[in-house]
Amino acid sequence: VDRDRARKPAIAVCGAGEADADLARLAFEVGRRVAEAGHTLVCGGMRGVMEAACAGAHEARRTGASGLVVGILPVADLEGGNPFCDVVIPTGMGAARNALVVRSADAVILIGGGSGTLSEAALAWQFGKPLVALTSSGGWAARLAGTALDEKRRDAILGAGSPEEAVTLAIRAIESARASRCAD
Amino acid sequence: VDRDRARKPAIAVCGAGEADADLARLAFEVGRRVAEAGHTLVCGGMRGVMEAACAGAHEARRTGASGLVVGILPVADLEGGNPFCDVVIPTGMGAARNALVVRSADAVILIGGGSGTLSEAALAWQFGKPLVALTSSGGWAARLAGTALDEKRRDAILGAGSPEEAVTLAIRAIESARASRCAD
Amino acid sequence: VDRDRARKPAIAVCGAGEADADLARLAFEVGRRVAEAGHTLVCGGMRGVMEAACAGAHEARRTGASGLVVGILPVADLEGGNPFCDVVIPTGMGAARNALVVRSADAVILIGGGSGTLSEAALAWQFGKPLVALTSSGGWAARLAGTALDEKRRDAILGAGSPEEAVTLAIRAIESARASRCAD
Amino acid sequence: VDRDRARKPAIAVCGAGEADADLARLAFEVGRRVAEAGHTLVCGGMRGVMEAACAGAHEARRTGASGLVVGILPVADLEGGNPFCDVVIPTGMGAARNALVVRSADAVILIGGGSGTLSEAALAWQFGKPLVALTSSGGWAARLAGTALDEKRRDAILGAGSPEEAVTLAIRAIESARASRCAD
Repeated sequence: VDRDRARKPAIAVCGAGEADADLARLAFEVGRRVAEAGHTLVCGGMRGVMEAACAGAHEARRTGASGLVVGILPVADLEGGNPFCDVVIPTGMGAARNALVVRSADAVILIGGGSGTLSEAALAWQFGKPLVALTSSGGWAARLAGTALDEKRRDAILGAGSPEEAVTLAIRAIESARASRCAD
Repeated sequence: VDRDRARKPAIAVCGAGEADADLARLAFEVGRRVAEAGHTLVCGGMRGVMEAACAGAHEARRTGASGLVVGILPVADLEGGNPFCDVVIPTGMGAARNALVVRSADAVILIGGGSGTLSEAALAWQFGKPLVALTSSGGWAARLAGTALDEKRRDAILGAGSPEEAVTLAIRAIESARASRCAD
Repeated sequence: VDRDRARKPAIAVCGAGEADADLARLAFEVGRRVAEAGHTLVCGGMRGVMEAACAGAHEARRTGASGLVVGILPVADLEGGNPFCDVVIPTGMGAARNALVVRSADAVILIGGGSGTLSEAALAWQFGKPLVALTSSGGWAARLAGTALDEKRRDAILGAGSPEEAVTLAIRAIESARASRCAD
Repeated sequence: VDRDRARKPAIAVCGAGEADADLARLAFEVGRRVAEAGHTLVCGGMRGVMEAACAGAHEARRTGASGLVVGILPVADLEGGNPFCDVVIPTGMGAARNALVVRSADAVILIGGGSGTLSEAALAWQFGKPLVALTSSGGWAARLAGTALDEKRRDAILGAGSPEEAVTLAIRAIESARASRCAD
């Protein structure tokens, strides 16, 4: 039955709008693996880490993977994001759209990141979303891995040593959350 | 080249959260034809006209059409919308999300509708989106067909006598807007 | 007791971002009378009808009235609105802020207006806010006066022949809503 | 001239929706001093640190201070916040309103705080707003004092040892930002 549901689990990738080659490679790998798992990739739809993750998922789609790519843009223009998004939500809300990016996800992966990524991590925590941080990516991801953002949740932001581990942990967290909901 | 773009044109369907059998049948037909054209269906993701349109597009997808279904929900819960959306954006913003529904579309089709649909028509007009109204569907769609909402645009809301005509007019308007952009 | 409450009733004035001398005079009078009644004037904080209403309230404040002036801007810049607002909320959300303008009001007065004003009228109706339309001001205010936007409410948008009558009707509607809440 | 401007500088106070007696006393003092300086206090309008800061500013107003109190609520109900706000913006946007709280301020003071406060600090940093953190208040305020959230800004979050110092630093930062704008 679950296999037939229209909506597949969605994983948000949060990271900076600029990325050097190392960071872009990590983000590309995360995006590729999300799409290969058949999950939807959600992100802010712009450049840097976001674009690299979208490009990875797009590449996977071209070779048969089913995962969709969603960009929730700060700008109001449908053509204002990177070219790899299947679905574009041009909010025109600026950084207030960060809340929508993480709300649209079943789990969130942090890659590097400055203050924008930090705001997404904090909102995701507040919304009860499982969080995974790529420890090798620097930025706020490295600083937050293994920590709890406040005492309202009993878990912590999971640290992942590789893109593969990050996606595996995110999928496991989604399945675990679903199982506990079904057990209620 | 265009055929390979990740993002396909998106058509928003706006209508009430309740629908009798006639209205639901019209919305279903519109959704089905949007998906059969390979376009993305965007809507508010809830019940009534929205659900019927999503169900129509979903039905088309199951029989091979490629059009995606996107629900931009007023609620914050990923599972809070109808079950036919491939992509769910649970904004948690209430009716303030109406602006996002029409911003995410290249053209907007109005079906019946009360004050919520009217707000979406007005916002779509303000954002410069082409509008088509199903004249046989009653509500604000019938009242607005053929009219201009203010003097800032030189066009009018196009009236369509059938779901088929509504989708055809919406697609034509999208192509025409694209052609004039490319000519710039 | 009520006299000591921090929050005074708020009246939103909705109208176009451009205004000729006649429209500006009407809006100025509405704003002046809102402030003289000690009520808070809420609006979109920009030019045209909004600025004229704010200027009227500001003028009243300078001569002893207590009503505050609030501008909920579409832009993100604190200095981006007209100069007559005591409190500025620079949402950076574009026209999605229209929902916030009417949510922040206990009653809404429509003056002239194009598609932006129409969207505010529709959202205010949806949110259950009492609506008054200045019949002599043209635009959507004149077209909507005396009508119901859908069947979910049993009342209609009240028509007012003058700024004085518009503010009187808005205040009466607020008092009546409050009385019926207290009677519950 | 500046003295006659309608809008006074606004200072946001960000902190948790729960507060013990010590934290509430700190927040009350901050709010009182903001209002005594004639500045507008902006906050999320709910309980805990927010309510205590509003109560402090409200107390100052009752004894002659001119500073206004603004609550930008996550809920949609005008009566849903604490009772000390002169102006209430019931966004109905949940935590997406955090972006609006900090956008509405010329400077931001952090008091204690969990993930919600952290998201406001991160957004304020992104928007270029001066930030002051009360070091004695624990939570994210204590953790962020003296740090930079990313490399896009050359300054740091200023640590303040007392409510008095926090308000003084915030006012000084506002004046300094204004002076550098005028020098342009």
